[in-house]
Amino acid sequence: MKILKTLKDYSEIKNLSGGEIKTLASELRHKITSVALKNGGHLASSLGAVELTISLLRSFDPASDRVIFDVGHQAYAYKLLTGRLENFHTLRQWGGVSGFPKRGESPFDHFDTGHSSTSLSAALGYAKARDVLGEKRHVVAVIGDASLLNGLAFEALNYTRESGTRVIYILNDNAMSISPRVGGMATHLARLSSSSAYNWLKKAIKDSCASLPRGQAIENVLGKVKDHIKTIVKPINIFDEMDINYWGPFDGHNVEEMEHVFELAKKYDGPVLIHAVTVKGKGFEEAEKDPTAFHGLSPAEPAGRAAGKSWSSAAAEVVLEMAKKDPKVVCLTAAMKSGSRLEEFAGCFPDRFFDVGIAEGHMVTMAAGMAAGGLKPVVFIYSTFMQRAMDQLVHDVCMQNLPVTFAVDRAGFVGEDGETHQGLLDISWCRPVPNLLMTAPRDLDSMVKLFNFTSDHNGPVMIRFPRGKVPARITSDLPSETCGIMPGPEIIKNGEEKALIGYGRTVELMIRARERAAMAGIHPLPAVIDLVRLKPLPETELKDILSPYSEIVIAEDGYAAGGAGEAVAAFARELDEEDRPSVTVLGVPDIFVPQGRVEEQEIYCGITPEKVVSALVPAQKTANRQSARL
Amino acid sequence: MKILKTLKDYSEIKNLSGGEIKTLASELRHKITSVALKNGGHLASSLGAVELTISLLRSFDPASDRVIFDVGHQAYAYKLLTGRLENFHTLRQWGGVSGFPKRGESPFDHFDTGHSSTSLSAALGYAKARDVLGEKRHVVAVIGDASLLNGLAFEALNYTRESGTRVIYILNDNAMSISPRVGGMATHLARLSSSSAYNWLKKAIKDSCASLPRGQAIENVLGKVKDHIKTIVKPINIFDEMDINYWGPFDGHNVEEMEHVFELAKKYDGPVLIHAVTVKGKGFEEAEKDPTAFHGLSPAEPAGRAAGKSWSSAAAEVVLEMAKKDPKVVCLTAAMKSGSRLEEFAGCFPDRFFDVGIAEGHMVTMAAGMAAGGLKPVVFIYSTFMQRAMDQLVHDVCMQNLPVTFAVDRAGFVGEDGETHQGLLDISWCRPVPNLLMTAPRDLDSMVKLFNFTSDHNGPVMIRFPRGKVPARITSDLPSETCGIMPGPEIIKNGEEKALIGYGRTVELMIRARERAAMAGIHPLPAVIDLVRLKPLPETELKDILSPYSEIVIAEDGYAAGGAGEAVAAFARELDEEDRPSVTVLGVPDIFVPQGRVEEQEIYCGITPEKVVSALVPAQKTANRQSARL
Repeated sequence: MKILKTLKDYSEIKNLSGGEIKTLASELRHKITSVALKNGGHLASSLGAVELTISLLRSFDPASDRVIFDVGHQAYAYKLLTGRLENFHTLRQWGGVSGFPKRGESPFDHFDTGHSSTSLSAALGYAKARDVLGEKRHVVAVIGDASLLNGLAFEALNYTRESGTRVIYILNDNAMSISPRVGGMATHLARLSSSSAYNWLKKAIKDSCASLPRGQAIENVLGKVKDHIKTIVKPINIFDEMDINYWGPFDGHNVEEMEHVFELAKKYDGPVLIHAVTVKGKGFEEAEKDPTAFHGLSPAEPAGRAAGKSWSSAAAEVVLEMAKKDPKVVCLTAAMKSGSRLEEFAGCFPDRFFDVGIAEGHMVTMAAGMAAGGLKPVVFIYSTFMQRAMDQLVHDVCMQNLPVTFAVDRAGFVGEDGETHQGLLDISWCRPVPNLLMTAPRDLDSMVKLFNFTSDHNGPVMIRFPRGKVPARITSDLPSETCGIMPGPEIIKNGEEKALIGYGRTVELMIRARERAAMAGIHPLPAVIDLVRLKPLPETELKDILSPYSEIVIAEDGYAAGGAGEAVAAFARELDEEDRPSVTVLGVPDIFVPQGRVEEQEIYCGITPEKVVSALVPAQKTANRQSARL
Repeated sequence: MKILKTLKDYSEIKNLSGGEIKTLASELRHKITSVALKNGGHLASSLGAVELTISLLRSFDPASDRVIFDVGHQAYAYKLLTGRLENFHTLRQWGGVSGFPKRGESPFDHFDTGHSSTSLSAALGYAKARDVLGEKRHVVAVIGDASLLNGLAFEALNYTRESGTRVIYILNDNAMSISPRVGGMATHLARLSSSSAYNWLKKAIKDSCASLPRGQAIENVLGKVKDHIKTIVKPINIFDEMDINYWGPFDGHNVEEMEHVFELAKKYDGPVLIHAVTVKGKGFEEAEKDPTAFHGLSPAEPAGRAAGKSWSSAAAEVVLEMAKKDPKVVCLTAAMKSGSRLEEFAGCFPDRFFDVGIAEGHMVTMAAGMAAGGLKPVVFIYSTFMQRAMDQLVHDVCMQNLPVTFAVDRAGFVGEDGETHQGLLDISWCRPVPNLLMTAPRDLDSMVKLFNFTSDHNGPVMIRFPRGKVPARITSDLPSETCGIMPGPEIIKNGEEKALIGYGRTVELMIRARERAAMAGIHPLPAVIDLVRLKPLPETELKDILSPYSEIVIAEDGYAAGGAGEAVAAFARELDEEDRPSVTVLGVPDIFVPQGRVEEQEIYCGITPEKVVSALVPAQKTANRQSARL
């Protein structure tokens, strides 16, 4: 770390020699790799953007200019070079350095991200703010090729010319999404990458820069660009068709070349897109060979922790079995084939597997079309990314009551990815959506049951499950009472007076709360009930199941506002006074939940067995009270 | 109506002569115009697509083929020709013919729409269903040029090549969105429209078709296309860059030409985009001259109804005044300049007005960038279209707590546009979003106050207001108690024992309910309270205001699930037992609310003064009951 550690701040990068830059790049890679392998994180993208970041900080000043990293997967080197070196070992930990750009963390982070494809819109916003306020600064967005294929980025590209502003887009093209990228645009980019149209420009830059003082050289080249760029580039690419000047492709690992291009872009008086070709995972052999495996890493597991099956794997296996039996079952993902463990499905049924790239909206509407056309599509999607396709879910799937199954992964707390990736909104957002049936399995058995239920159900079903491992089987104390076809609530543990209601992950939490109550000598012990179906609320069954209890505590796996707890409370309000239990809801309060381990997030939000027991105790004091309350 | 009325079904269109087709087109235009001027509707788009629809029905059979109209604005001729002639006078009325395609209305409507840009994804879904199920049919999507510029359509275009399927996209290009279209793609389309590259193709089709039997002629031309299309078209357009065959431009009003192209497309073994140039409002002089004014018409007003100011106009005026005082105020719309009455703002402040086209996601993220850059953006958006930008609202605006104001228009019931356009989800969806402050004005005064509040508030604010006219001023019986800065609840009418809570439009509804209670001799009369702020709930003020009342009835302007009523009930549950009122919520039940007048929709959903009074009456019976309940 002889260079990285001695840099007082990013401005000193400008003074480094070519050899020192190489050393710095290697030190950055070493630091990024060692921390990401331990803490988890987005390794391969960040490794690929090391030289690009060094070049950026030699040309632009993030104190006055604005640099926006798309997604943020590639921002680790930028963090290390702008004041986050010392704390970088806390990456993605509670209270530590965020895995994504965060304005609250540093004045050099200019736009918070996490979800893809926002950078061009944000940059246009910054650029127009500069224009309206009469300021002078450069605005730069760094976007990966996979992010560029999302509709949001396209809308920004389309608006770029209209905005009539100066903005610099840097396309960091590693020819990969999380998995290899998808679509016609991808082919187009590949065509551009191998094009030689810009060799003259590269040469012109090199020649001029070698022989002239830098300022003059740039003026020189700029003149040539203005003269020639239209005729040379016009016919070959999509960006110029949208009146954005396309320059490239350049070698994103060549600091000198990138820096020259950036200097040129700073002088250019219109929007420009600079195409930099990079290698995902660059400099770390295993990551270069298999960038998908090294895209997003989980924190290293403590030795000895049992490696159970993940919810994702379990869901993928169930759907694969369904597909073997029913030729109408097809499976969709938006660039999450690997995260959703769909490799085997894709291998078995290549014609019934659809990876649409980072295009959640399109995926959901296409699934609606497939269902209207007679198929049984299963959409695999993370809860946080479903936020990108809510209108499609309502307008295209549920309004037509089409049999699309949503396998909603990473629902609830997601841990180290933090605020942007939490799956805490899906329940509140889906509760008011008519026709949708929303469920949550507590273990593998109930997951299999819920997926099998979708085979015959003629409408949309959502099956939400958390990040992490499937718990051991959670059997019911009673034979299942729900002999109907529709999934409904189940009594897991018998009890008296009080009932603890959970769903999905919080069923196990409620069992732990009951154990804790037992240890605390609370008597009688509360029952534990698995709600199973969150919407529409299983009112008839719930009325029967809840009738013995005067007090209910519900633990949410999402925000309290609009959650399942409020649904149960609303249902209870409609009961006759003598049957009406009081309802206490433990849910996520009105805050964005920061990064950390899931357990830390549960404690932060007060959704723990301890809190459940506390909620029981004051009720305990007044157990003899006659008037039921709600 | 000598042709239209005598057609037994659409299959007979094939047998019509050129002259008869002209007559039919004119009859269709007459019918569409007369009904749309009376019932309201999307006139100009439908007039422009008359010949296109006739051509479609001569080439394709909607009993076996699948035809998907994007948005559905242009589907009236299709409805008239596929069995909806007789009931067409009920267009957009309660129980009548829908203004949009509806699978439930006709077997010839293949995909429900209303929101833009879904047709390409839906068509790809249908096409893949056909492939997987081994069926044979053509799948056609008809999409307007403005819809094509939305990110969702781009995602589908990008995936088209990847899908490896046969699908026919018809670009109905009238060079207009609802207002003139926006962006680099629009310029590109304009360039294509004036291109002559396809003259040879048109000529080849004409020549071949004139001299040969149709089947053979098509084979002939198809051969030529396959040989020449790549070399001729490749360099000039964006669709071919994405490996979608682009054919065009053609005259969308020339039935013979369109039919020949369609026949060609049916034989082609890959995805093809057919560019048809049409005139919006064609055949109706006033609409041709001012297609924006004739895009979406409201039902004709009964004579004598007072023409008050619309909420939209009022909001636009307030924001214009703010902009005059504060140079940081800018204003954004997604193709709704006219609907949101922003013409004057655009005229006064062209550099601070941004119409991004149909690109809600981009608009919201750009507004976030603007706010991060120091501006005070006001986003004008309809509630239903905000569904398209929810992730941007959460991830880009609220997570960074940026001062973006959302002027949410058409919130609540929207009347004749029906299911797809209802603004019933925004409250439930925004309630769990941290940092967001959600408000609803009851009249012009309170709207002005709420907008002015945003000037100094350093975070996101949503101000939601309904479609229609602003009511007369609703004054409070008491001097306002909310002397704090934050908007909070206000007592509008004094009362005892019971309180009726409304917000926005339902404040007036609650006043009418109180009047009805007075007429029914109910005593004492309930108070009426305006909640004003829906989130975060004004808990301290609410506790004081509600303390005299043992029973509360809330009327929602949206779904009951997750709405403001549940918020108030959750708040009440936390109160001490002696202060705890019972809570009854009147909200939209778990259904999609169909088209009709707003009053019909209110009755259908049980949100009326009568229902409020009924909710009071059973409580009345037990007024002496001691145990407060919730």
